[in-house]
Order: sequence, then structure tokens, then C-alpha cells
Amino acid sequence: MTLKTLIGGIEALDEAAMRAAQQRQERLTKPRGSLGRLEELASQIAGVTRQATPRIEHIVITVMAGDHGVVAEGVSAYPQEVTAQMVQNFLHGGAAINVLARQLGARVVVVDMGVASDLPPHPDLIIKKIAYGTRNLARGPAMTLKQAEQAILAGAEVAQVELENGMDLLCTGDMGIGNTTPSAAIAAAFTGLLPVEFTGRGTGLDRGGLKRKSNAVAMGLSATQPNPEDGLDVLAKVGGFEIAGLAGAILATAAARRPVVVDGFISTAAAMVAVSLAPQVRPYLIAAHRSQERGHDHMLEWLGARPLLDLGMRLGEGTGAALAAGLVRSACALLGEMATFDEAGVSEKQSQ
Amino acid sequence: MTLKTLIGGIEALDEAAMRAAQQRQERLTKPRGSLGRLEELASQIAGVTRQATPRIEHIVITVMAGDHGVVAEGVSAYPQEVTAQMVQNFLHGGAAINVLARQLGARVVVVDMGVASDLPPHPDLIIKKIAYGTRNLARGPAMTLKQAEQAILAGAEVAQVELENGMDLLCTGDMGIGNTTPSAAIAAAFTGLLPVEFTGRGTGLDRGGLKRKSNAVAMGLSATQPNPEDGLDVLAKVGGFEIAGLAGAILATAAARRPVVVDGFISTAAAMVAVSLAPQVRPYLIAAHRSQERGHDHMLEWLGARPLLDLGMRLGEGTGAALAAGLVRSACALLGEMATFDEAGVSEKQSQ
Repeated sequence: MTLKTLIGGIEALDEAAMRAAQQRQERLTKPRGSLGRLEELASQIAGVTRQATPRIEHIVITVMAGDHGVVAEGVSAYPQEVTAQMVQNFLHGGAAINVLARQLGARVVVVDMGVASDLPPHPDLIIKKIAYGTRNLARGPAMTLKQAEQAILAGAEVAQVELENGMDLLCTGDMGIGNTTPSAAIAAAFTGLLPVEFTGRGTGLDRGGLKRKSNAVAMGLSATQPNPEDGLDVLAKVGGFEIAGLAGAILATAAARRPVVVDGFISTAAAMVAVSLAPQVRPYLIAAHRSQERGHDHMLEWLGARPLLDLGMRLGEGTGAALAAGLVRSACALLGEMATFDEAGVSEKQSQ
Repeated sequence: MTLKTLIGGIEALDEAAMRAAQQRQERLTKPRGSLGRLEELASQIAGVTRQATPRIEHIVITVMAGDHGVVAEGVSAYPQEVTAQMVQNFLHGGAAINVLARQLGARVVVVDMGVASDLPPHPDLIIKKIAYGTRNLARGPAMTLKQAEQAILAGAEVAQVELENGMDLLCTGDMGIGNTTPSAAIAAAFTGLLPVEFTGRGTGLDRGGLKRKSNAVAMGLSATQPNPEDGLDVLAKVGGFEIAGLAGAILATAAARRPVVVDGFISTAAAMVAVSLAPQVRPYLIAAHRSQERGHDHMLEWLGARPLLDLGMRLGEGTGAALAAGLVRSACALLGEMATFDEAGVSEKQSQ
């Protein structure tokens, strides 16, 4: 698999399946359009999957982890070792995403894309380590172009294994101390807006930390001048390995005609990279929620995506995606399982 | 049971349990406050249930059905017989609320509070019929004060049976052709705003229907002059039997220290009646969603409630409540099941 073949495999949505879904919506026992965005979601999934009444059964949440050289600039409220510690927490089932996955009946796949330390082996941990963390993006490229491509393909492989095992829907999730900084840099690079528009408090930065973070992004963009028309260039210069892995997983899932629920700030940066590489991936995406992290709205706007939820969350890990995936599954179940007016013997709307 | 004893049984939330929940939130492996409204919800449920780590297992959706004399004014796009037909649809599992209840693992309880026809017996149908539909509220009181009280107590009894069987959370749901009209009248009576502010398209009214609906509400309010300080008076003059039943179920659930997820337009009107009768019921309520029906925002504002979801829905039946109940259950699971920093061996935030 090359990046080119991966991208080349992504096709347009199936208009006929979308039309069939919409026509069925109008025969179901409810006033026309009364399920609002759930109807739109079900039609979208029909187009994605080429099935007029798609079902979502096997949901997978890929939590991709990586470390970031830019933490040397003092851009995070937590020490770098927390990335590896939280990976253990995921593997032991104690993190927020584990709880939500159990509620949802979903599978959590934890991937080391570039954690700064060696992690003890665990049957549920996938090792795709590209390097022991990125370089400091404030002082030069975070990774080489080759590493960026390698990381995307590694993320795609993770998704492909799950797709082979029947994954119906991918939820993206991330873990990486400092990773709102590369995400902010990616967002600034693609949108052309100032770094400060995307520099929020992350896990809880104080004013000094915020300033250091904003400066780090500005320095990095100024030093490396990423080309906003070239997703791989942006990713290599100011990205992260877990962000690259998520971009790859998104591309592979779309290529297999399955929908992707994109989590918050970091996952949205990954989606921007994916869309920059393959614009036709856009209709495969569902924006889970509006993150409380500053600038997320601008990123969603760039993607042309409306978030499903707005709950003041800013945790990452795929937590917003897991909540939204429940809505997506329900939307498909409604389309597939509701009775029609004919089946239920219910009178239709009368002329007034 | 009298209305007075029912109302007298509703106590304030438990501050100690709420504090304990909040303190636990701060020890869990996540940045402080990063779960946003899910943290607020879990604390609220702690206060409701007096449990520091409450669990939501048995969710019940009461779908209360009733007919409305005001349909004689031409205020609905569907014929009145659809109320009874949809009750059959609920009992056969083909309606939207059935699909969502299956997704949620919740129980649907269907109640005839005042359907205009006799319904064939069914093991899952509860008959609490107060009358064969209300009178036409545009021309005089919809029901007597005695019927209003009787309907509230009947709804309370439905909830009490479920509470005895272990209900952890009530979702309110409604069915009744024409019932956005009494709901609009209730909202106008309590808020003092003009009827037109609450007169939306319901199940799909055209312009003429909208005008008839707005006139019917204005005529009814003008003819009967309900007292906005007296919930029973408002309910009797411009309400409906299913709305009364829902108000009673809300009161009984709060009296038993269990939370209530309030669905959209009609359920919110019922919640307004409940709050008018017993203001201390307010913190037991969770507003499920912002309905697309005109004026719902004013009603939520009067209640002081912020909706959890905003998905452009306007179906009723408890569909919004069922989706929101999943979020509430997840919020409680996060509080109860996530590991603390100590348990997981994760480093805490460093001084910057």
C-alpha cells in the first residue's frame, strides 16, 4: 500500500442509496422530517455504505498515542510521562473512553504511534511506533516527509485490520501530552488564521503557558513555512505521529466505504490532514461534537462539518466520538426498524 | 394519595452527595472539568438520588396518549384517529420510540390517558382514561378541575408502579393528535407571551392551519382566563389528559428521588405544569433537547433548563428524551467507573 493507492481507493457517496433512504424516511410513521439530523445522518450512512438501510453494529474506537518534542517549550500543564501512563490506563479499562466504550458496546484499540518511552507489551496494545516522539516543531520540522507517510500508512493498517473484522464505524481518539499544540499549528496552517485563534488552555494551561504555546506555534510556522495546499508537508512540519495515524485510519475507513466519527480538537486536525490529502473523504466524516478548545469552530467550518453535540467537553481520547456514535447507530436503527404508514395501518397526513 | 401529599413529598436535592460527586470528579484521570456538562449531570443525579456515585440501569419511557377537542378547529395536519393508531404502533414496537428504547435497553410504558376511542386490550397498555378526549379549549375549559387532578394522580400512579419495580430514571413521552395546541396555550399562559410565539407547524400545518391554531389558543385563553399562578387552573382550562398524566409522573418520580428526562414541546408543557404546582421539582428535571417546534426555547427559559441536544427534532413520543437518557447514563457511569489518578498511577498536573 502506498499513500497514492490509499487515496485513490476513496470514491464518491452512492446517490441511489441516499435517495432510497430518503424515500423510506417519508414512508415511516412520523411527520416528514421530524427526526431532524437523525434523518440526515441515516441518509449519509446509506450513501457511505451503499446500503439503503445500513446497520451499525461493530463500532471501533482507535485511540492513537504519541509524544511531542514541542513540550520542551512548556506548552502543557501535565508532564510528558502522562502519555505512557494514560496508555496503561486505557489498557486497564480505567479511562473515560473505556467507560464510554463499555456503555456503547464498542471496541477500544490502543496504538503506540510514537510514545517517548518503550511501553510494556500488552495483548491489546498495537505498536506502530515511528519514533520516540516528534522533534520540537517550534525549532524545525516535527518529522520527515518519509515519517509522515509511514505514520499515515501505519494508521491505515490499524483501520484495515478492524475493517477486515467487520468494523461498521470508526471513532477517532487521541492521547498525547502537548498535542493541542501541533493541532493548533495544523489548523493555522490550513485556514491561514493566526495561531492565537487556535491556542486554548488544553488540559489546563495558565496565562504564561498559553503565551508559550502561541509563540511555539508561530515560531514553527514561521521557521518551516508549511504549504497549505500540501497536507503531507503540513503534517510533517507541524504535526504529530498520532495525528498522522488518525489521518491514515480515516482514509482507510473511507476507502472501505465505512463512516468515521471525528472526535474533538486533535482528531479534527487529523481530519483536516486527511481532507487535504483526499478532498473526497469529506462526506465520509461526521463531526462528533463542538470541543470547548479555542478555535475548534474554525476547524469545523473549514471542514464544512456541523457538530452533533455541544456539551462543553475537551478531553479527547475519542470521548466525544463515542457519545456521537450512539446517535449515529440510533439514526440507522430508526431508518431500518420503524414501521411504515402502510405496515402500521396509520392514516397519513390529510389535505388541509 | 392526594395532590397535596404528592407535592409535599418532594424534597430539595442532597447537597452533600453533590459535593462528594464533584470532589470525586476532580480525582478522576482527566483534566479538571474536561467532561463539561456530563460532570454537571452526574453531580445533579447524585443530588437527586442521594448517592455519591449513582447508577442508571432501569430506564422507563412513559408514552401517555390523549385526544383533544380542539382538533375541531382544524389545528392538526393528521386526523384524530391517528392517536389510537399510533398507540397500536407503540404496542407492536414499530414507532420511533420503540426503536430508540431498544437501542437504549429501556422499557416503554404506553398509557391511555384520554384517547377518543376504546382501545383493544393489550398486556402492555395501561388504561387510565379520564374521558374520551378533552373538550374544545377554544370554546371553554378543556376539562374540569376534578378531571385535571384525577389525571395528574393517574399519571403519578403509573410512575409509582415503575418506581416500585426499580425505575432509575423516567423519560417522558406523549402522543395526541392536536397536542401542540394545548401545549402552546399552557406555555402562553405561564410565560405571558403571545400565543403566536408558541404556534408552530406541529406535525406539518400549512399557513391556514397555523392561523387557526393561533386563533384557537388566543380564543381559549381569552374565554377562560387561566390564572398563571395556579398550575391546576391552567391545566384544566387549556391542557390535555396526557399532559396532566406526564405532570403527575414527573411529580411522583421526583418525590421518589429519581431524575426525569423531559422530552420536547408537549413534555415541556407538562413540566411547566409540574413546576407551577411544585417549584421544588425543578432540579429533578433534565431538558432532553431543543425541539424544532416554535417557542420551545421560551418554555425552557421559563423552566431555567438548558437542553442537552439540539438535533432539529420535533417528533415527540419521548424520542428526544430517549437519546438524552443515554448521555445521562454515560455521565453517571463515568463518575462511578473511571479510575482516579492514584488508582491508575497517573501523574497530576504540574505547577507551571
